[in-house]
Amino acid sequence: MKTRILEILRQTKDWASGETLCREMGVSRTAVWKHIRTLREEGYHIEARSNLGYRLLQAPDIPLPGEIAAGLLTAVIGRQIEYLPELPSTNDTAQKLAREGCPEGTVVVTECQTGGKGRMGRPWFSPRGKGLWFTIVLRPPVNPAETPQVTMVAAVAVAEAVRAHTGVESGIKWPNDILVQERKLCGILVELNAEMDRVNFMVAGMGLNVNVPRSEFPPEIRDTATSLQAESGRHIPRVPLLRALLKSFEDWYRLWLDEGFAPILSRWRELCVTLDCPVTVHTIRESYTGHAINVDETGALLVKTEDGSIERLLAGEVTLRKR
Amino acid sequence: MKTRILEILRQTKDWASGETLCREMGVSRTAVWKHIRTLREEGYHIEARSNLGYRLLQAPDIPLPGEIAAGLLTAVIGRQIEYLPELPSTNDTAQKLAREGCPEGTVVVTECQTGGKGRMGRPWFSPRGKGLWFTIVLRPPVNPAETPQVTMVAAVAVAEAVRAHTGVESGIKWPNDILVQERKLCGILVELNAEMDRVNFMVAGMGLNVNVPRSEFPPEIRDTATSLQAESGRHIPRVPLLRALLKSFEDWYRLWLDEGFAPILSRWRELCVTLDCPVTVHTIRESYTGHAINVDETGALLVKTEDGSIERLLAGEVTLRKR
Repeated sequence: MKTRILEILRQTKDWASGETLCREMGVSRTAVWKHIRTLREEGYHIEARSNLGYRLLQAPDIPLPGEIAAGLLTAVIGRQIEYLPELPSTNDTAQKLAREGCPEGTVVVTECQTGGKGRMGRPWFSPRGKGLWFTIVLRPPVNPAETPQVTMVAAVAVAEAVRAHTGVESGIKWPNDILVQERKLCGILVELNAEMDRVNFMVAGMGLNVNVPRSEFPPEIRDTATSLQAESGRHIPRVPLLRALLKSFEDWYRLWLDEGFAPILSRWRELCVTLDCPVTVHTIRESYTGHAINVDETGALLVKTEDGSIERLLAGEVTLRKR
Repeated sequence: MKTRILEILRQTKDWASGETLCREMGVSRTAVWKHIRTLREEGYHIEARSNLGYRLLQAPDIPLPGEIAAGLLTAVIGRQIEYLPELPSTNDTAQKLAREGCPEGTVVVTECQTGGKGRMGRPWFSPRGKGLWFTIVLRPPVNPAETPQVTMVAAVAVAEAVRAHTGVESGIKWPNDILVQERKLCGILVELNAEMDRVNFMVAGMGLNVNVPRSEFPPEIRDTATSLQAESGRHIPRVPLLRALLKSFEDWYRLWLDEGFAPILSRWRELCVTLDCPVTVHTIRESYTGHAINVDETGALLVKTEDGSIERLLAGEVTLRKR
């Protein structure tokens, strides 16, 4: 009902009379008024004038399903959206929905994560209303061994959308952090649930710092984190950006399914800012110091160590060393 | 309380007087009697004689935690056991417990699965009281790319335990079915929940047909399934067998963690009954017909196809062709 009123207000663009709304909805003026009040509480600016009716002045910049859907150009990604004002972790909620059988492309989005998580169980700072904290459910028909490629699909999709939509020159740090000038703008956490030869589902979670002022980052990450607002000097509306991110993800994901990893890897290499750099890589077992020289066709990082040997690393944490 | 009474009865071996039990437990004779009644309902044969007290004649052959624990020789696997008389799927329950943080080695076991599942979402026949339907929770500190090796660890562990404990000459069909003379004795379903470079948890589910008479298999699998009873011609007590399976699993799993995949693969090759055989392998994308010639050091199956090329298959369904 509320959604329908909003739709009419959007279509009308000018004034929609109370009478029209009552007739369209088949309810009383009081009922219409109650829905208008709820919409205002959600952040919609709706002007009311006797004799004229109602007029939508401004929609809130909150990733509500109706807001995202209006103008979303995707076929699959984000066609179903689960919005919650607050939750522990969008990845955990997405995994729950996936276990229950939700369709591919379902997006879980929130204003605030109370237990946001990054890779390796680290916490992820997700302040209310200042970022895009969301997760996409995927069901790719591939072998589980190929799934690390999805993190690179996601990295390319985010970097591309950020560049095109905001002009901020973001780059990729292997395997899937999005940086601006060595500061982290966006983290990506892809999780997999699989049998040995079949993917049950994947969830690709993204935490993008949008309008976080530099001073609001916790002290321990203030020197290493950044946001689009901090980089561009302006407030970035989040809903259109989220639509752009979903569209970009869909395009790159489809390309990967249709044409394989080569075109992804090619663009990934161009966007990567940690190739040809002195790095230290901490893996689950040991650390390597050397130069990141390339990424091979499986997505593994090739590091030329100080003794001249080349290590092929499937996973790890890259730290740039000062030259 | 019930567990403690059982413990005393086991230790006493002969008669435990009602008085002793009351004193040990600090409860009334009526309370002791109520617990004895519950134990009898669970299948324990307990004799009661005035003046003498109680005596344990026979424990039920049901995988109750107390039964499994009595004489279990493992350090980690099965030290925590979740038993339910019936549940949809031990793998699903194990995944739930793992998400909630249960320790490595936790075992979920049931008398009857109502939604037992095999690989690729196929159903798994799990009739009440006639098999061992159980799942082990694992948290190996390895890269997700190495986790397919766990299915082969499980296959070796099951084949070895079955041979040693029952004398039935079971073999392995790539990657992880346990066969006796081309009939399936046990299915293994390993599932993984992981980040791209860290395992959150794995669950290794096993469905072993123990005392299923051949005539009780559903018609569609009667020609391709078998049970230990059908093969050995005798009734096999399940609890000691389960203890042997858990011990075997722990030994092979530890060996894998300590020394890597080589010793597993070596034994796996010896137990494999589908090497040097004419096979058809159906993978997620296509089918290959040829000879299974070997398994490489990653566990992939090498098939020499009819045109002489060698295909390296990470996953798939093997069908033996008649020679």
